[in-house]
Amino acid sequence: KANSGHPGTAMGLATASYVMWTKFLKFNPRDPQWPDRDRFVLSAGHASVLLYSLLYLTGYDLTLDDLKNFRQWESKTPGHPEATHTPGVEVTTGPLGQGFANGVGMALAERFLATLFNRPGHNIVDHHTYAICSDGDLMEGVASEAASLAGHLKLGKLIYLYDDNKISIDGSTGLTFTEDVGKRFDAYGWHVQRIDGMDAEAVANALAAAKAETSKPSLIIARTHIGYGSPKYQDTAFAHGNPLGEDEVRATKQRLGWDPDAHFLVPDEALAEWRKAVDRGRAAQDEWERRFAAYAREYPAEAEMFRTGMSRGMPASWDADLPVFDPGDKPIATRAASGKALDAVAKRVPYLVAGGADLTENTNTKISGETDQSAENPSGRVLRFGIREHAMGAMANGVLAHGGVVPVTGTFMVFSDYMRPSIRMAALSNLGAIFVLTHDSVGLGEDGPTHQPIEHLASLRAIPGLAVIRPADANETSEAWRVAMERRNAPTVLALTRQAVPILGRAQLAPASGLRRGAYVIAEAEGGAPDAIIIATGSEVAIALDARERLAAEGVRARVVSMPSWELFAAQPQSYRDEVLPPAIKARVAIEAASPFGWERWVGSEGRVIGINGRFGASAPYAVIYEKLGLTADNVAGQVRELLARSAPARR
Amino acid sequence: KANSGHPGTAMGLATASYVMWTKFLKFNPRDPQWPDRDRFVLSAGHASVLLYSLLYLTGYDLTLDDLKNFRQWESKTPGHPEATHTPGVEVTTGPLGQGFANGVGMALAERFLATLFNRPGHNIVDHHTYAICSDGDLMEGVASEAASLAGHLKLGKLIYLYDDNKISIDGSTGLTFTEDVGKRFDAYGWHVQRIDGMDAEAVANALAAAKAETSKPSLIIARTHIGYGSPKYQDTAFAHGNPLGEDEVRATKQRLGWDPDAHFLVPDEALAEWRKAVDRGRAAQDEWERRFAAYAREYPAEAEMFRTGMSRGMPASWDADLPVFDPGDKPIATRAASGKALDAVAKRVPYLVAGGADLTENTNTKISGETDQSAENPSGRVLRFGIREHAMGAMANGVLAHGGVVPVTGTFMVFSDYMRPSIRMAALSNLGAIFVLTHDSVGLGEDGPTHQPIEHLASLRAIPGLAVIRPADANETSEAWRVAMERRNAPTVLALTRQAVPILGRAQLAPASGLRRGAYVIAEAEGGAPDAIIIATGSEVAIALDARERLAAEGVRARVVSMPSWELFAAQPQSYRDEVLPPAIKARVAIEAASPFGWERWVGSEGRVIGINGRFGASAPYAVIYEKLGLTADNVAGQVRELLARSAPARR
Repeated sequence: KANSGHPGTAMGLATASYVMWTKFLKFNPRDPQWPDRDRFVLSAGHASVLLYSLLYLTGYDLTLDDLKNFRQWESKTPGHPEATHTPGVEVTTGPLGQGFANGVGMALAERFLATLFNRPGHNIVDHHTYAICSDGDLMEGVASEAASLAGHLKLGKLIYLYDDNKISIDGSTGLTFTEDVGKRFDAYGWHVQRIDGMDAEAVANALAAAKAETSKPSLIIARTHIGYGSPKYQDTAFAHGNPLGEDEVRATKQRLGWDPDAHFLVPDEALAEWRKAVDRGRAAQDEWERRFAAYAREYPAEAEMFRTGMSRGMPASWDADLPVFDPGDKPIATRAASGKALDAVAKRVPYLVAGGADLTENTNTKISGETDQSAENPSGRVLRFGIREHAMGAMANGVLAHGGVVPVTGTFMVFSDYMRPSIRMAALSNLGAIFVLTHDSVGLGEDGPTHQPIEHLASLRAIPGLAVIRPADANETSEAWRVAMERRNAPTVLALTRQAVPILGRAQLAPASGLRRGAYVIAEAEGGAPDAIIIATGSEVAIALDARERLAAEGVRARVVSMPSWELFAAQPQSYRDEVLPPAIKARVAIEAASPFGWERWVGSEGRVIGINGRFGASAPYAVIYEKLGLTADNVAGQVRELLARSAPARR
Repeated sequence: KANSGHPGTAMGLATASYVMWTKFLKFNPRDPQWPDRDRFVLSAGHASVLLYSLLYLTGYDLTLDDLKNFRQWESKTPGHPEATHTPGVEVTTGPLGQGFANGVGMALAERFLATLFNRPGHNIVDHHTYAICSDGDLMEGVASEAASLAGHLKLGKLIYLYDDNKISIDGSTGLTFTEDVGKRFDAYGWHVQRIDGMDAEAVANALAAAKAETSKPSLIIARTHIGYGSPKYQDTAFAHGNPLGEDEVRATKQRLGWDPDAHFLVPDEALAEWRKAVDRGRAAQDEWERRFAAYAREYPAEAEMFRTGMSRGMPASWDADLPVFDPGDKPIATRAASGKALDAVAKRVPYLVAGGADLTENTNTKISGETDQSAENPSGRVLRFGIREHAMGAMANGVLAHGGVVPVTGTFMVFSDYMRPSIRMAALSNLGAIFVLTHDSVGLGEDGPTHQPIEHLASLRAIPGLAVIRPADANETSEAWRVAMERRNAPTVLALTRQAVPILGRAQLAPASGLRRGAYVIAEAEGGAPDAIIIATGSEVAIALDARERLAAEGVRARVVSMPSWELFAAQPQSYRDEVLPPAIKARVAIEAASPFGWERWVGSEGRVIGINGRFGASAPYAVIYEKLGLTADNVAGQVRELLARSAPARR
């Protein structure tokens, strides 16, 4: 009815998914949030119509009318599955490979939670993660990364059915994808089976064998037929992304022994059979609730902590130990301050895990005193992702989608590009991911342009729903952590320096808690209303403060605004924004060691931006780079002087 | 001396690279651009000191002083190898996995050129692509994608030495990387050998065997020892990213039988031995030049075409067939117009190849009438990358770095995120990549938010050196192709619609050739100086023109500016920019079906931007989405009216 969509995959997967959903998957359609349900990921998100059908048939809150509204404005059945939108959809999928890696994160979360909360005789966390994935998923690099890691971690409760239909949009997989997938997954340490995916019994046997193999993740290579039943289009690329057309739909129904005139027909007896899932699910959850009640009596604190985590909450006083840094101490990189904040939070939040993409120490995302997560040590809270940024991002999303665990991930800011599709998915799916991106400017120095972010702050700020926070010093970093941890339904980037920056003297300056409003007057102009405003973020705030002093010595009154987060500031009421950046003050200079892209928003048509314009960075000690690129207090002061001379010649 | 860097990998690879560079690699240090040289990629770019040493020792234009200036401002020896910066560096590397995939592109280019230009008895293109890659390279998904494709394409002249040193920054590869790499590459269809990488003879034998195997790419898994020779740090993660320190450098030299007091010591006899590469290289190139001269006599046109391609030039009249579209014809998607332009160019430029990441038809990057590139059909000009955007981008960079071939690649704009690290590398390396990004807005309709770019235009515009061109109609699309093809030293994004847009009537409007200046007045206000300016890009230009007519009917004079490319416009002289956007006209409304991020630059503090702010897209027919999100002529006209009412109340 939608006259668009991807019918073929859904048709080919009908048999296998019927078996999976009626004989294996543990779920309660009436409570999609039941914590101990099996997780199901349709990594091949384009087959959304399959998932919606399964949800409808098994009794989720989805009607036949919802199915009829497939791909229409505000319907519950959008073109690709959206987790926050449709009950029973665990993760948003469509961009291939993401769901595959999400599932690995889910299985990791399950094992970690089981280790953290289960007690002898109390198995309150014990479920599987199932996924259906496509050729496209397996071609994408993010899935390769996640598969290698899943094998390494021996995630035995991960069961993937690979829809081996030999067709992608361009045509036969023979065009591009002739590798031996089974052998590859064997090399990763997976349990691999090859079956006829149209044979219900074979599917059931394979799923049972996959469950029985608990020391390895399982891949079931299921040979299926895209567009199954369509006389004209079965096993063709046409069936992938095109509606079959009215005639062929009729012909297909005829071929399959169905009434060609019936539309959206679900015979009562079939529906009744499917809907047994409701009772089955309710009984399973009831049984679990009884067990959980017993657990809660014996381990009330643990039960409470589990509930808090699963509801995206935070334990009381979680932020009590967040460090306060003394300006008397020597300069410290904000990445180092971040490490201390992370340690303080981790102590209070047992369900927080953290790690990095082979830069765990460098990004200070290794929780002090904690051990590495592994098959042998599943309670380990330090996640080692290897040099696999993309899988890291997508797995973190999976951990969050599973629920109950807060993952923190770290890499160099420049490599956020590698995981950008997952950062976007976090924002689109309302997931409270915390991305620690260090080495956040040319200030990283000698590693040079390949490692120096230039356009990254702008390009991250452009992602809707993501908050980018670039704290000025150690104390703003503590505050940034407070904000990031509170954002349980939206992702946050912490942009942190490699190089040491001074701990700002808050006795003279405004308190770091101003960070939470996105921007604040950190140093007011002295001796009267400001002539000019200097806006800075991160490591450049100290430069701005320096410039302010130089100008003050000449009698120029400059206000300095620390603006760690555009997004948080933009969310403030206009009155506050006008207080910080009074519209009447047009002489504004912004400084940020990055592309000036987008800064016109804050400096206005008459302002200036000191950034890195139209070029990449350079390999040299960082102080040299700052000097050569004009990221200096002298330059800031000079630009302010020029602006004032231009705008008010009479005044000088 | 730099007191930073990655010495360990270089030390472990000394033996293997000595063998490769003195016994196998074909190159002429005195002409790094010799077309038939073997290509060498140091995918493990952090070991740059190894490459610089090899370049110095073999006689490239690099001095001992350059080595001493390692990682200093404007030195020839930056932290990571930069292709445009240091003679003999083929590709910029550092971000892991990129070099691996670049090499696959190089080998593809070699085979294609050999098929295109070689003639019986004239083997003018016949060289190998070598690479050294690290654990990190093999963990990255982009390398997995490229490896699978290289196996599929049976690129038999690709020889990779994998530096299997069991160490990455975080520690032992046992932490995260325990897969069976050899078996995985075997599954991809590679020829796999396992050797002791510290054994020169074993390395030589393996390289010889790899050369002998011409039907498959080769992976030599060479067990090496990071920090080889260092008593304290050999085989430790410390040796990866830290200078050893003075004492340990002394101890290492002692252990290796070297004078501990000597710095930058290259004994004359050793240098003389290495420098034989100069004579060897000159002789090899001389011999090739003689053969090429013979070829040129027999096949002058082919020789000329080869030279033109290798020098990043274009054949005469390459753009003669670029289509001109008739406004009388019915609306046509710019992606469709782009397909016609591509066909027209491809006909004239035999060394142009094009393809897509399983969206070859959808992005119209299939050259009409041409066949698929494959092992069996190496002259095929249609590249099928499979669902591997990242490898596509990195391979295109490799094709360009090889030289002689212009690659065009296509995917949906939203999936540019998957290849973003490669887009950045193209810009950083001055490579004239052409990225065809279609389905460029919510205008793609039903596929919904996972497939609808919102922040992508902004985030691509933020990349230094990249030109983003979003043509308004079919004729602007032709012009966009002209610009993109001319940009042989910088990458270009063509942002194209899925949906049909009208072919604008150029009899009434300014010619599409205005595109080349980035922005132009496509429709002047009627009846006097403009009251307001409406700025639009791509599919929204037609909406802007519609708004202008509505306003004209009310006596409001609005100029419409088509602004297909910010970057091209920003490169114009101020006088032209002021002509198009006169500073005095403050009433400006921009419309673009994307995040408004950055548009303040053009509309100024008093202007308005109609875009998609703070949200993602939606799944619905596209006309519904445009209406619901206010991307309409009505809204544009309304905003103009409001601005004029506000700015000039006396006037109304």
